[in-house]
Amino acid sequence: MNTAHQLHKPLTSTPVGRRERRRAETREKLFRVAMQLFAERGFFATTTEDITEAADVGQGTFFNYFPTKQHVLTVLTEKQMERVAHAREEAESGKMPIQDVLRELMHRIAQEPGKSQALTRSLMTALLSNDEVRQFARDTMGRGRETLSEMIKLGQKRGEIRRDRKPAELAMAFQRNVIGTLVLWAMQTEGDLDAWIEKTFRDFWGMVSSQ
Amino acid sequence: MNTAHQLHKPLTSTPVGRRERRRAETREKLFRVAMQLFAERGFFATTTEDITEAADVGQGTFFNYFPTKQHVLTVLTEKQMERVAHAREEAESGKMPIQDVLRELMHRIAQEPGKSQALTRSLMTALLSNDEVRQFARDTMGRGRETLSEMIKLGQKRGEIRRDRKPAELAMAFQRNVIGTLVLWAMQTEGDLDAWIEKTFRDFWGMVSSQ
Repeated sequence: MNTAHQLHKPLTSTPVGRRERRRAETREKLFRVAMQLFAERGFFATTTEDITEAADVGQGTFFNYFPTKQHVLTVLTEKQMERVAHAREEAESGKMPIQDVLRELMHRIAQEPGKSQALTRSLMTALLSNDEVRQFARDTMGRGRETLSEMIKLGQKRGEIRRDRKPAELAMAFQRNVIGTLVLWAMQTEGDLDAWIEKTFRDFWGMVSSQ
Repeated sequence: MNTAHQLHKPLTSTPVGRRERRRAETREKLFRVAMQLFAERGFFATTTEDITEAADVGQGTFFNYFPTKQHVLTVLTEKQMERVAHAREEAESGKMPIQDVLRELMHRIAQEPGKSQALTRSLMTALLSNDEVRQFARDTMGRGRETLSEMIKLGQKRGEIRRDRKPAELAMAFQRNVIGTLVLWAMQTEGDLDAWIEKTFRDFWGMVSSQ
């Protein structure tokens, strides 16, 4: 019923020179391998050596890309911000109803941390127990809410979203719903995250739509 | 505007004999002290010795009450279940609109883990990274949703809650909203949880009410 969010091209921008391209590839590889290990062993039990070994690069290489293990997670927050920016472009293009743009965004935002229940738990644990991770996640989510608010304002202008509520509050409701869904889903032993998100979106949209 | 949730008597049932009363008091004391330490040091950095020392009881005493440190958290889940059961009684008595019963419950459920942002983070971390804690929290929340569903069914019967939605799904939305709010709030450096919950409840009620 809703598969549009799975059909997108990768969001990473393409660097021009060969050297820049290789750098971007290695950074992406370190990120992917790290996420895999965080899911398998947990964020805290994974060392930077585990990551470089699994990525098949020299031990010191890690620090050419990230000052600390926590900083790997900035790649995730960047990717999430790119998804939000992409959604705003779609909203501004006017080709899709805001409802579809926001639904797709909610699925896509949940997808990366929700690759597995173990990964969600590992990332949420890092977020909650490490001051540095929490601080940049908080900043990124704050910027995410600003962009969401702009999309919601657009939806209000077009008569798709109710006008008696502040865009910032509805943007907060969006994030609250995604996080609540991820945590509840990650507590279970099984379950299709996309199906969980679809239900959550229905509730969220019922709350914000102008009907 | 909404202070009813702060005016309640303590929910712990009163044991009859002196010995039982003392046992209950010690158990409650160990729980309180543990929660304090979890907030200050984190769940994992707190040892059972830290707890017995701070509670001023013998080291071995701890294990007369709880088989492991994780089991201290069963007291929290018991208390949460008592709050849900209490809300159901209020709902069944018919003295209050279901809206007020659910609002009060949402505030009261958030209050205990939300004593401080550090405590919320510590408890969520324990929940997400410890299999045993997660399992009993999952079971308790499942039972919580059943009782919530009964209240919602009652609200539907009385025409207060929309009838085109399954009670179990609205109960899930209730928990998703509370958890999402707690996590987002716990990521901030400041903020009045009761004010956050009040906004969340407004959104939740807007979604479930028959209008």
